Amino acid sequence: MPNNIQSKQFITQLLSQLIEKPSVSPNDCGCQEILINHLEKLGFVIERMPFGEVSNFWAVLETKNPGPTLVFSGHTDVVPTGNEADWTYPPFTPTVVGDLIYGRGTADMKGSIAAMMLAADTFTKSSHFKRGRLAFLITSDEEDKAIDGTQKVVEVLRSRNEQVDYCVVGEPSSRDMLGDVVKNGRRGSLTGNLKVNGVQGHVAYPHLAKNPVHLALAALDELTHEVWDDGNAFFPATSFQIANVNAGTGSPNVIPGEMLVQFNFRFGTELTVDLIKFRVTEILDKYKFDYDLDWWLSGLPFLTADGHLVEAVSNSVTEFIGLTPMLETTGGTSDGRFIATLGTQVVEIGPINEMIHKVDEHVSLNDLVTLNKIYNSIMKSILG
Amino acid sequence: MPNNIQSKQFITQLLSQLIEKPSVSPNDCGCQEILINHLEKLGFVIERMPFGEVSNFWAVLETKNPGPTLVFSGHTDVVPTGNEADWTYPPFTPTVVGDLIYGRGTADMKGSIAAMMLAADTFTKSSHFKRGRLAFLITSDEEDKAIDGTQKVVEVLRSRNEQVDYCVVGEPSSRDMLGDVVKNGRRGSLTGNLKVNGVQGHVAYPHLAKNPVHLALAALDELTHEVWDDGNAFFPATSFQIANVNAGTGSPNVIPGEMLVQFNFRFGTELTVDLIKFRVTEILDKYKFDYDLDWWLSGLPFLTADGHLVEAVSNSVTEFIGLTPMLETTGGTSDGRFIATLGTQVVEIGPINEMIHKVDEHVSLNDLVTLNKIYNSIMKSILG
Ligand SMILES: [Zn+2]
Ligand SMILES: [Zn+2]
Repeated sequence: MPNNIQSKQFITQLLSQLIEKPSVSPNDCGCQEILINHLEKLGFVIERMPFGEVSNFWAVLETKNPGPTLVFSGHTDVVPTGNEADWTYPPFTPTVVGDLIYGRGTADMKGSIAAMMLAADTFTKSSHFKRGRLAFLITSDEEDKAIDGTQKVVEVLRSRNEQVDYCVVGEPSSRDMLGDVVKNGRRGSLTGNLKVNGVQGHVAYPHLAKNPVHLALAALDELTHEVWDDGNAFFPATSFQIANVNAGTGSPNVIPGEMLVQFNFRFGTELTVDLIKFRVTEILDKYKFDYDLDWWLSGLPFLTADGHLVEAVSNSVTEFIGLTPMLETTGGTSDGRFIATLGTQVVEIGPINEMIHKVDEHVSLNDLVTLNKIYNSIMKSILG
Repeated sequence: MPNNIQSKQFITQLLSQLIEKPSVSPNDCGCQEILINHLEKLGFVIERMPFGEVSNFWAVLETKNPGPTLVFSGHTDVVPTGNEADWTYPPFTPTVVGDLIYGRGTADMKGSIAAMMLAADTFTKSSHFKRGRLAFLITSDEEDKAIDGTQKVVEVLRSRNEQVDYCVVGEPSSRDMLGDVVKNGRRGSLTGNLKVNGVQGHVAYPHLAKNPVHLALAALDELTHEVWDDGNAFFPATSFQIANVNAGTGSPNVIPGEMLVQFNFRFGTELTVDLIKFRVTEILDKYKFDYDLDWWLSGLPFLTADGHLVEAVSNSVTEFIGLTPMLETTGGTSDGRFIATLGTQVVEIGPINEMIHKVDEHVSLNDLVTLNKIYNSIMKSILG
């Protein structure tokens, strides 16, 4: 077991190598080869699985004893920097200031990946690794389309009936201090594309036209006021948001012929996709106008209510940080939604998310050392 | 007085010269010099009044005897052709088929201008022209912005206190047959540009954002259901139409920060601009959201309820067509709104408007001959 100084050195060095690569989605820029190099030295069997422009790999280290598979999931891609001049330190130049290391991706989620690598290094060399398999699923497109990333790798795993029992996702789950929040699920995301069909015309002759905006306003208003559910012990109430509205030719003299409305649901396990669709259609139909409605399901909700993994994570947070984490399902989607479809128990634990996607993104190196200990402890619980 | 065959020849020849010029707004393409050439031969004094890209002229022929000023108002510009391949005959090649002449602008309103020119030719050479002044106000931007056109010429006339008693606008007012509808006024047009201010955010964190679409839907719905007035004997009820709505970044995951709504009022003499603004603000304020609202007044309503001109037009329609025209104020705006601000009695009479702004625009040459007689008869009534 390395001491804290050694751990910090390991993490700083590896994380610095990753920050230097401007791996804006879907470009990996060589990050994954650095990780593969580490894992191969530990004996992992590597499968590179590129799809389209996206780099992915699946790495497995198996013991001789039967047991569960524990996979660590992460992404090497980062979101764009915005105007680099707004940064105090260049976003792709690792800069250590006291306990903090600055750079795009430090908190989301190259820092977690560095902590995972150290934990794997320590754990696989120790006598604690007794049974089952330790695996990594790393992608270079989580932040953008996420179509050729984890989702595609999961389809390969499913096609060959790989058993994946437990998954730890390194997304920055913590709110005010490391480990205070662990995500044990995520809401589903369902998008509706509504086209309200009217009849275009001149504003001076409204009787010859049919204004789609006028037709739909009351129905849209009712949708915003509908209580879709009250949530449950694990999920907040389902939320409906209109994200985009467009109608009109740009001229003040033309009644538009159609209106496009795009709305999004974030929903928990109290509702099904079919039920949401039914209820939306029911409301729209009350107002008796002509429309087309297409749906796009971005991800179903998933939940790991309890079980061995949630317990292992919770215990290790208590052990190393001295608090009991809140289990939450709020926030955006993550690649956990894809892995959960394999029947896997999925938990997300990573650093404080306050600075993610922002200018001057940074992370605490001491937190990453502690995170490495938590990851190591989870490995022990599941594979020890 | 020319016979019908001679009249048709005059009109066909002059109109053909005008059709050949592709005078899409604000380009005059030399149309006005053709008209000026005719009017100068009749003794008119010409003032060219170009403003910006727009050609305008004011032409006056004065008798020795005091009397009213009668102005004929018209525009040489035309709307774009759309895809020329959709036209049966090329839009800028005058094509006579039986009684019809085809080409962009034939009905709106080069045909009326040709009829006016013949009427002026006949009238000013006759012994009927006894008193007052006959004038022309011609612009090359009525169809587009209409900022540097008739409006600017009217400002010049106002600045020198020109007396303009009567105005005949050649806009195509007729519905099913020539002369069945005469416009003795037009509604006003007032546009509101509403910006609803919200707070942008991620759809997964609606409590941190404020969706401007959600905030404003009920208020907008109430605006569409409001009865603004019941109209009166001369004007239909005021109408409100939402012409443009835009909100959103294009992403289904982002709650928009603002919504832009553009709406337009067509209003009669039952309402004032201030009253409309007051009532809109009152409705919006009930819903307690933050907004900015700018107004743009395109034109006040005007009305020539009765008087010498309405009588003269009505009588001449009865004389040459055998029907009593309907007096209406419906439809879009016209340059009449600017001239009316001089205290002028304004009436619009022109050919059937069914084909205006359309592919294969055309007009009946026999109708233009009759329109010339009506214009001539109006001249006699006012200046005889
Ligand atoms: Zn992430
Ligand atoms: Zn016109």
